[in-house]
Amino acid sequence: MSSINLQQAQQIIEAARQKSQEMGVKMNIAVVDAGANLVAFARMDGAWLGSLDISIKKAKTARFFDMPTGNIGGLSQPGGSLFGIEHSNGGLITFPGGIPLKQGDEIVGAIGVSGDSVENDHTVAEAGMKALQ
Amino acid sequence: MSSINLQQAQQIIEAARQKSQEMGVKMNIAVVDAGANLVAFARMDGAWLGSLDISIKKAKTARFFDMPTGNIGGLSQPGGSLFGIEHSNGGLITFPGGIPLKQGDEIVGAIGVSGDSVENDHTVAEAGMKALQ
Amino acid sequence: MSSINLQQAQQIIEAARQKSQEMGVKMNIAVVDAGANLVAFARMDGAWLGSLDISIKKAKTARFFDMPTGNIGGLSQPGGSLFGIEHSNGGLITFPGGIPLKQGDEIVGAIGVSGDSVENDHTVAEAGMKALQ
Amino acid sequence: MSSINLQQAQQIIEAARQKSQEMGVKMNIAVVDAGANLVAFARMDGAWLGSLDISIKKAKTARFFDMPTGNIGGLSQPGGSLFGIEHSNGGLITFPGGIPLKQGDEIVGAIGVSGDSVENDHTVAEAGMKALQ
Repeated sequence: MSSINLQQAQQIIEAARQKSQEMGVKMNIAVVDAGANLVAFARMDGAWLGSLDISIKKAKTARFFDMPTGNIGGLSQPGGSLFGIEHSNGGLITFPGGIPLKQGDEIVGAIGVSGDSVENDHTVAEAGMKALQ
Repeated sequence: MSSINLQQAQQIIEAARQKSQEMGVKMNIAVVDAGANLVAFARMDGAWLGSLDISIKKAKTARFFDMPTGNIGGLSQPGGSLFGIEHSNGGLITFPGGIPLKQGDEIVGAIGVSGDSVENDHTVAEAGMKALQ
Repeated sequence: MSSINLQQAQQIIEAARQKSQEMGVKMNIAVVDAGANLVAFARMDGAWLGSLDISIKKAKTARFFDMPTGNIGGLSQPGGSLFGIEHSNGGLITFPGGIPLKQGDEIVGAIGVSGDSVENDHTVAEAGMKALQ
Repeated sequence: MSSINLQQAQQIIEAARQKSQEMGVKMNIAVVDAGANLVAFARMDGAWLGSLDISIKKAKTARFFDMPTGNIGGLSQPGGSLFGIEHSNGGLITFPGGIPLKQGDEIVGAIGVSGDSVENDHTVAEAGMKALQ
């Protein structure tokens, strides 16, 4: 399996950090590899402390299921087919802000961003993702 | 970053305890510092045992996201943008009763109160918060 | 069962805090009731963050087994009869600093102190204990 | 209390990474702030996966007790005064590789390094620490 390396992870985090700065938001940014293990992390000054864990869980969740975290959240609502999935794997986060990272067709890791609205979290995660491509 | 000290935390807890006594309610009262670590705690005689952990989690949650805990609960309902956020950080409490503590514009800690209705929990937390100002 | 109340717990913590100040040490001080649940807690300014959890675990451990924590540590060494007991109850602390609190012959709670040498932790815990008698 | 910022944490990690490269070792490097919360992290390509958690726990442990992690390990051996302390705080690591970070006399965070012998881990942590000064 191919997997992201540290240099790539740091470029992704830097791109996400710059995007956050442009948007005037303060983010926690995590990148995991193909094995869903943390490769690099950054918490911007003044970012919410509680978003630290959420950003890492978003990155892991996106790689655990190879899809954006918000897609899972659509299925884990009351009455949904995956209701309660957040109880697995030591805690998942299933709202937007986590995105798989691809090289060609292969998933090589994931990014997770947390610190503002879920829309902004997702926008910053996308900016990070694009730095890989 | 500035942070609350023990003397301030004890004054906050005493103000919250007195307010509880006036209201005829029995509360667990927790104060955390800027790093979200417990500084002082008091459980009033006869207060629910299960509210001990909830009061500490409310204080941590309020500092983790620098807002009253009930604000988060408004967003974490089914269909809300933060549905399931309670699974992060070893367990959050997102109903009212946790409030950040400020000195001027800076957040220096948080108070969490649990033991009665969430409205009463919030009222007591506010009384504690005001003792700092 | 008799149990310590909040006023007593706060007197114990204040006595322990004053003793710490006299000794020039910075302590985390926890008091649990007869049910081994936290009643009151104080972290002195500048006290080790890691001693927060240890002070609470010492108080619980002392009440769990109704003896000073150091007594258990004497039995939990490699080859000892209680080797590994620290793995139970979500984590025990078995070095000195935790002492049961008695009224007459009845154990009504426990105090746990952490923040300096184990000898000093124990000395401060004793000062707290004496405030009850 | 003062605390390290992201830019400083990234400089520390870069200095530690360069030192590791010179030494031909592959490290996990974590930096926490004054509140013992993660600020930045990097896992070098090919570094042990199991050292990820250890590096973070080393950084936290060093800040929890404001001393190099190896100092604690000297006291937590069988028969030592802190035997079993590793059971606190959700798991401590008490062998070398974690060092507090200071600005002047004030502790503003800590670095934790894991991935090779504990001597090499400590050497790399020191190289990171010096980047702050």
